Amino acid sequence: MKVRVNIGKPYDVIVENGVLDRVGALVQPLFKAGAQAMIVSDSNVFPLYGERLVRSLSAAGFKVSGFVFGAGEAQKTLATVTQIYEAMAEKGFTRDDFVVTLGGGTTGDMGGFAAATFLGGIEYIQVPTSLMAQVDPPIDGEVGVDLPMGKNLVGVFHQPKLIVSDPETLGTLPDEYFIDGMGEVIKYGCVMDEELFGQLERGEVIDRMEETVCRCIECKHALYETDAAVENAHAALHFGHTFGTALEKLGGTAPLSHGLSIGIGMVMAAEVGESFGITEIGTAAKIRAVLESYGLPTETEHDFSKVAEAAAQNKQTSGKQLQLVLLKQIGSTVLHPIDRSYLVLRYKIAAEQHRRKQ
Amino acid sequence: MKVRVNIGKPYDVIVENGVLDRVGALVQPLFKAGAQAMIVSDSNVFPLYGERLVRSLSAAGFKVSGFVFGAGEAQKTLATVTQIYEAMAEKGFTRDDFVVTLGGGTTGDMGGFAAATFLGGIEYIQVPTSLMAQVDPPIDGEVGVDLPMGKNLVGVFHQPKLIVSDPETLGTLPDEYFIDGMGEVIKYGCVMDEELFGQLERGEVIDRMEETVCRCIECKHALYETDAAVENAHAALHFGHTFGTALEKLGGTAPLSHGLSIGIGMVMAAEVGESFGITEIGTAAKIRAVLESYGLPTETEHDFSKVAEAAAQNKQTSGKQLQLVLLKQIGSTVLHPIDRSYLVLRYKIAAEQHRRKQ
Repeated sequence: MKVRVNIGKPYDVIVENGVLDRVGALVQPLFKAGAQAMIVSDSNVFPLYGERLVRSLSAAGFKVSGFVFGAGEAQKTLATVTQIYEAMAEKGFTRDDFVVTLGGGTTGDMGGFAAATFLGGIEYIQVPTSLMAQVDPPIDGEVGVDLPMGKNLVGVFHQPKLIVSDPETLGTLPDEYFIDGMGEVIKYGCVMDEELFGQLERGEVIDRMEETVCRCIECKHALYETDAAVENAHAALHFGHTFGTALEKLGGTAPLSHGLSIGIGMVMAAEVGESFGITEIGTAAKIRAVLESYGLPTETEHDFSKVAEAAAQNKQTSGKQLQLVLLKQIGSTVLHPIDRSYLVLRYKIAAEQHRRKQ
Repeated sequence: MKVRVNIGKPYDVIVENGVLDRVGALVQPLFKAGAQAMIVSDSNVFPLYGERLVRSLSAAGFKVSGFVFGAGEAQKTLATVTQIYEAMAEKGFTRDDFVVTLGGGTTGDMGGFAAATFLGGIEYIQVPTSLMAQVDPPIDGEVGVDLPMGKNLVGVFHQPKLIVSDPETLGTLPDEYFIDGMGEVIKYGCVMDEELFGQLERGEVIDRMEETVCRCIECKHALYETDAAVENAHAALHFGHTFGTALEKLGGTAPLSHGLSIGIGMVMAAEVGESFGITEIGTAAKIRAVLESYGLPTETEHDFSKVAEAAAQNKQTSGKQLQLVLLKQIGSTVLHPIDRSYLVLRYKIAAEQHRRKQ
């Protein structure tokens, strides 16, 4: 299966079981014969799939080197990027050569950033091996690293030349990462794909991951394609983020991953939407049921009003108002501007309604 | 005076004596009221012009902060860029805010790179205060930093929103830097502006630096505009580089700056061109005379054949051949492919002819 990204410099996303062994053949027409490829991967993923990727690229006539960093998001730093630069400089990389990222979001973001900023920008290929990275490709090419004072503060826009996704690699993904990625899949269903949401409810997606990954990429692509000229473009993708990032900020005894926090945030947003009369009644319950069926949490240890307060203090947007992404119903969103102070009040009411129903 | 750059995202270069005090007014229409400005400057330039720039930007309603690094090209590193990121993060910079670089090429390259890579890219304004930086603006927006293993290995393309050049700032420029910049001015005369070369010969440029800076920017812009689709675009700008960078590599008892090395390289390229029958006889002598009249060296301590050998080993281009930029006459270039081995031989002959004439 293939999704053609038609934004910026168009490129293809190939999604196919077993395609890992064909990366070399797919990449071959894109570069000069004998060009150098630098595989950027981490210490978890490279031992699993590195050899197959090296073999495939070598068979296609490329000179292959590898840069493997210690796994973990904590390595997504300029210090690691500097080591990637050094590895490329040592091999005498020119603008004819390219990077291949093999791994999850951290690897793709960081390897893409290294490519984007080396010699004025060289090409890169992504081979995502986590569910989150497969369903959330950098459509507009945003890549970057973290600073000690915040995530993704450093970044540029540089689209990959090709993305090759092999859903079979999800077989080795630790459960917690798979569940994290499912939160993202469920979000696509909520905001723009009622049919996908139905498949999720009926438990039909795990056995057809090729199709599921493709659907998600198509959703994201459609949002970028349609909304390119619209203010608050791709805002729908932030469904669940107002409350979800507040939860992340609050932390707690068992801090949740980004995906899990957003999952709970989606339930909260649906509850608020229902209390406003914007979201179809019963939507929050549907989302809650789907999240639970894939092992995602739907409740938080934090007091509801505390979450609403933290959400109201969100600094990613300025001014008195927040732009809340709400659902009209499954598959359809609406942007709802709301005063920060009013949010706290309204959320208390929604929480009270929720408690009474239980 | 103003040059409109019509490449990529068009922007203006304002060249005017005393315009430093009007930067705020010129920048005001480009950003939201009350936006934050981060001045990036070095420990030589900021004490000279920082206060005037701060006053001008503040008067225009911007919230101004400063980041001042220890002067010197050795500071053009990712470590310094990281400090700039930290300064911006600390001030809570968003995509509505901007960077203003105040200084020479190092400052412009590094501050531009920090802006290009912060939050996916924020805008920046350049206020160049060295002759080299004023006559060699980043038309295509190439900005970056050095790595321990090589200069300018890290970089991206990100055009400034505006460049404001005040030739009066050249008054405080140390002689060596002024002379270095004159090498670049002379190069523009050689490769595409016979009239400018005439003014240089007649000693008419120092008293009209506004016009001179503008002419140089127009030359560079014209090359980028005309050659955008042509292979070896802007190759003319590399006149003198084949031998000049070889000289830099060889170093020696008194290593020369980039500008001075290129100056000697231009004389060498003219001599080679004359011996090939490509360059009008007498051109090398003219270039030599102009360089000397502005205090630039025209001779090297190195044996001519050693320089030719180092030039032949140039690794910036691959394959057996080098693309030598030669003059037909003052103001007009031609690209001359030449075998590396042949270059050494031919240069020995040209050098021998030169020695006999003396």
